[in-house]
Order: sequence, then C-alpha cells, then structure tokens
Amino acid sequence: MKFTINREEFLKGLNIASRAVANKVAVAVLANLKIELDERGLFITGSNYDLTIRTFIPYKSEAKEIMRNYKEGATLINGRIITEIVRKMDAEEVTLDVIDSTIAVISDTHFESRLNCVKPEEYPDIDLEPTGTEIKLTKDAFSSIVSQTAFAASIKEQRPILTAMNLEADSGSLVATTTDSARMARKVLKIAENIRFVANVPAKMMVEVDRLMEGTAAVSVSLSDKKALFTLDRTIIATRLVAGDYPNTKNIIPRSCNYFLEVNASELAKAIDRTTILSIDRENVVDLSMSEFGVEISAKSSQVGSAVEKLETYKFEGQSLKISFNSEFVLSAIRALNCEDVTFEFVGEMKPFVVRNASDDSVIQIVTPVRTY
Amino acid sequence: MKFTINREEFLKGLNIASRAVANKVAVAVLANLKIELDERGLFITGSNYDLTIRTFIPYKSEAKEIMRNYKEGATLINGRIITEIVRKMDAEEVTLDVIDSTIAVISDTHFESRLNCVKPEEYPDIDLEPTGTEIKLTKDAFSSIVSQTAFAASIKEQRPILTAMNLEADSGSLVATTTDSARMARKVLKIAENIRFVANVPAKMMVEVDRLMEGTAAVSVSLSDKKALFTLDRTIIATRLVAGDYPNTKNIIPRSCNYFLEVNASELAKAIDRTTILSIDRENVVDLSMSEFGVEISAKSSQVGSAVEKLETYKFEGQSLKISFNSEFVLSAIRALNCEDVTFEFVGEMKPFVVRNASDDSVIQIVTPVRTY
Repeated sequence: MKFTINREEFLKGLNIASRAVANKVAVAVLANLKIELDERGLFITGSNYDLTIRTFIPYKSEAKEIMRNYKEGATLINGRIITEIVRKMDAEEVTLDVIDSTIAVISDTHFESRLNCVKPEEYPDIDLEPTGTEIKLTKDAFSSIVSQTAFAASIKEQRPILTAMNLEADSGSLVATTTDSARMARKVLKIAENIRFVANVPAKMMVEVDRLMEGTAAVSVSLSDKKALFTLDRTIIATRLVAGDYPNTKNIIPRSCNYFLEVNASELAKAIDRTTILSIDRENVVDLSMSEFGVEISAKSSQVGSAVEKLETYKFEGQSLKISFNSEFVLSAIRALNCEDVTFEFVGEMKPFVVRNASDDSVIQIVTPVRTY
Repeated sequence: MKFTINREEFLKGLNIASRAVANKVAVAVLANLKIELDERGLFITGSNYDLTIRTFIPYKSEAKEIMRNYKEGATLINGRIITEIVRKMDAEEVTLDVIDSTIAVISDTHFESRLNCVKPEEYPDIDLEPTGTEIKLTKDAFSSIVSQTAFAASIKEQRPILTAMNLEADSGSLVATTTDSARMARKVLKIAENIRFVANVPAKMMVEVDRLMEGTAAVSVSLSDKKALFTLDRTIIATRLVAGDYPNTKNIIPRSCNYFLEVNASELAKAIDRTTILSIDRENVVDLSMSEFGVEISAKSSQVGSAVEKLETYKFEGQSLKISFNSEFVLSAIRALNCEDVTFEFVGEMKPFVVRNASDDSVIQIVTPVRTY
C-alpha cells in the first residue's frame, strides 16, 4: 500500500478513528488502526470491541485532490503513534509507504519515520453492516436528545443498565430516558408512525456520536439485538448495547402537583451556584423555601456560616414548602432545558419533583429531594 | 469594620492575597485572609509562612470611588470561601459588615452570606518591612530573569537548595543561576555598581512574583539573611530564602569548544518535538548527529520504529559528533532563549554543552548529555 495524502485530511481521519482506540488495550492488536486503501478511497478503523469507528477519506472531495500516487493495500499501525506523528508533521502532504508488509514509512520532504506494522489479517472481523430497525434523525434532533438527557445517566458501573440511555420508539414517538436513580431526564421526539424498537445504548456513546457528528446534517441509526450502528456522511460508529432490562420509569413522573413555581432560569441558576459555596456539611445540598412571602435559596454550614438569596421574579402557587436538593442535579437540569423560564412542580417535601421548560413540553427533568434532619 | 466596595476591585485583591493561602493549611488560622481597613484604605493579607502576600486597595483610584460607607477595623475570614463568594456575586458593589467581631455579613441587593470570622489578633505577626540590600528592577528585567532561568531549577525536594534561584550581585552585575544538576540556566543583568549580595530565592516564588507583577512597571527587591521582599505598586510579597550553600556552578561552563552548530531555533524545536514521539525506550532521549554531510535529529524504539529529520539550514564546524540528550531539556532551553537562531557549543560526546541566543550573550543554557550504550 502506498499513498501521498493531504496532511490535514489524513489527520482528521486518524483523529476520528483514534477515538475508539483505548489508552490501555486488553488485546494488543487493538492498539493499532486498520488503514485500508481500495478503489473507493482510504478507510481508517479503530476499535476497543465496545466501540468501533470507521471513517472514510475519498481520493477527491469536490474538485480538490486529497490523495495521489497511490497503490491499494492495507496495514495495521499503532494508532497513538501514527496520529501523533501526523499531527506534529508540518508539510502540506504526507506519504505513507508500506514496505514488505512490515514497515510503514511515513515521510514528507524533511522528516521520515519508519514504523513497525502488522498484516491486516491480524485485525478482528468487525461487522459494520446496518441490520435491524433503522431510523434517521437530523443532527439537531440527535443533539437535543444527547444534550437534554445524557448527563442524567449513571457514570458508575455498579448497575450497568443505568449507564444506558433507554431509547424506545412506538406510535410515532421516540422516547429517550436516562436515570441514575436519584434523577431522571426524558426527551420525546416525533418520528414516522411505523417504527418500533427498544434499545439501551451506553449514554457516553451517544455523547461520542454527537461529537463526531460535527459538520454532518443527519445520522442513520440501526438497532439490532446487541448493537447500535450510527452512519454519518463518512463515518460509521458501532457500539454494543447495555444488556438487561431498563427500570420501569413510567410511574416516576408525578401525576398531580400541589405546588407550582416558575422562575427565571438564569437568576435561579446563579442563586443556587452562589449558595452552594456554603453547603459544606452536606455536600452540594441547598434548600429552596417557598411561601406567600417569597422564594429563597439557602445553605448553611455550622463551621463556616450561611448564605441566602431571595429570588426577585417568580410565580408561586401553593402553601409553604421547604425542599432540599442536590444543587448539581438541579443546575444540570436547568442547563439541559436551556431556556429563559423554568417551572417546578412539587408534590411534597420528599417526593420527586418535575423541572420543565415553560415553553417546550418535549423534555422533562425529575429530581429526587434529599432528606434533611 | 464595614465597607461597601466595587466588587471587581475587591475580587482582584482577594485573588492576589489568596495565592498565599495553602489548600491544606497546617495552622488553622492561616486558612483565613486578614482584612484590615484603616485611614489609607483596605489591606488584604494571605500567608502560608513560606510565602506572604499583602495587597492594598485605596478608597479612590484616580477619580473613581472604590469604597464608600466605611468604618475602620479588621477581621479574619476564610480565604477560599470569601473569594469564591465574591467571585460568584454579580452586583457592582458588595458590602462587608462585621457584627460583634464574630460574623462577617457579605451582601448585595439580593444575596447575603453570614460567615463566621475570627478576631484579627489571632493572626501571626508577619514582618513586611523592607530590610537588607535593596535593588530595583523593571518588570521587563525581572521577567527576563524568570522566563530564562526559573524552569531549570529542580522541582524535587530531595536537595532543597536546587529548588532555588541563586541571585548574586557584584561589580555591577546581577547573576541569576538555576540548576537541577542535569542542566543549568544563567542570566546576567547590568545593575548599579555598588550593590553586593547573595541570596537563594525559591524559583517558584520568583515565578509567582512575576505573575503578580502584571500591570506593574517595576519591582523593588529587598534581601536580608532569611527572606526576600518584593514590593510592587499595591502588593508586597515576602518569601523565605532556601537555606544552605548554592553549588559552585562557575566551572560548569566549558571554556573551549570543539564543535559549533548554529541552527534555526524553530526548525530545530519542531524536529526534536517530532522525533521525540519515537523515543519510547529511553524516555525523551533523542540523538543529534553532525558531520560534514549534514545534521540530523533521530530517535528509535525497538518495538515501535524510528524517526529521523535532516535539518535544512545550519552552520556546523568540527568533525563528526553524535550526542544524545533529554529532548525536554533542549526544548525548554530553546524556548527560554526565545530567538530566531540558536548556537550550540560542544566539547565532546559526554561533556555538558552550551546553548545560546546567537545575538544575546546575557543568557546561557547548559545541558548535560545522556549516556547511551
């Protein structure tokens, strides 16, 4: 295999595929990227079994020549090393030339590196063909799911199922749900009537796909029993699904509401952020007190002192209520809603409460209060 | 004590003094900042014994009113907490009011925090009066010393004296020297004839003073037996000196030179940076080979492969020589020289070599080669 390639395009491809190469690889061959050149162009594949990314670079893009002076073939090269080398080279073009299937020579006019490489047959067979149910989403729709729900999935591996984003399509809706058991986020999108599936995709893989979608208009998602496949313009991402049944979250959303609060999102977020400085004894726990006399956020430390902020603009309906919560949970819910005014619906002191965008009911955030003594 | 103060000016002062407050304090009272208001204005002091910073905020700066509605007094308040609170407040003015010497109320129109505070008498007495020899340096002169030598001091505490910057004034010169025993940096500045002193100032404190000098035109440095005092416009910094005798570095600079190399600094730095990717077996060690046929930088790993770069523009005098060095040492020496062309003077394969700015002889960098087998 041999080719001379535009360095920036090559680096972009190496960076994308490298995202699937783990820092510590369990299987030595997966420290490599698979680099294949055929009549269509260059394919670069990286994998850590859980996640596989294959990206494509054509010979030409529009009128611009990307590769020249080429001979088809394939090889495996240490992903971290080749990516770092191409990043630090500074010529406009880079030449890669595989000699005797064992040495890859990467060079420009003044620099030359000879890297040990491995025959492509050593790389595991990874199936990247779309199978199962397929659904197309625009970049905006996909990003809204990720930015409004992914943060609420668990990052602890004790209950693996909670690290997933539960995707459920039925009756013309796609519902994305995440929960770490102390809070929940749910986003509902309208889709074509005839699609039905349930899949638990690792939430961090959804974030990864969203990041890789930059500059892409849409993604095609294929879901089969064990894996999800995301097809972008030039890149395919395959990820395993999380095994097990997703907890039943249907009954978590309160049906009634005894207290209603509407506030300016930014004013509330700043007040929570400031008072949290004093929530030292109970880490990140602040109190929200509401009554006919006003709404205030407060926190107290026996050692250091206390802080309190009265909200200036609010709408409150209900009797007096004081509720304590993890400020990080409410702040991330507010950030995810990304709107001017947020509404809260409370049932009682110790019942999960609802946080919503006052003008968009496609997304809902649920937070469980913290018990105070 | 009571005052209403421009929030940004207050925050600037708190940030400066907080730099001396350690994350983990050995003596509880030093977790506090000392905040004192007298007829001159507001003084904020932070200390961890090794380093003390006192900064000053006047009642007015030029025509601008900074404080109003004030009553003189003093108190001690947790430095991390008050700085974080004032950073996250968002009104233009902040009011601090000490009630009964035990509670400091920090407030603006909508936020209020009540912090436990301590009587000012609890704070240790720290002498910030200049004594001993005094020398005035411009910001540029001080910064050149720091940027060209501080990096070569040791960061390990095994031999504390090597963490110092050795400052020696005599016969109209101020000489700053740092060494971690594998490399050395020296800067010579012209000063007034009649000043003589020797002092070993912790190199990281010199970096700290340089950072605090932003916006200041000059610094006055006072050196006594045990401490150095740096006086800026509104801030005084006191630091202990490092005890012990500084190693004799006079004989480290080679007197003769058998090989001479002049190269473009940026071309060389990039070549070293790229080839270092392959210096995996011997961490960060690269080879520089020079002969009548050319000059090249190379590195090799038995596992991964090799890299080599020929320099395009150079001047070399001498017979063939191959020398191995820690690439990080040579890169930081080149960065510190901050010039277009650098020169190297070599005595032999295993002798310390000199790196200089081709057009500025006030600074010299010495690097010891690495033995290769």
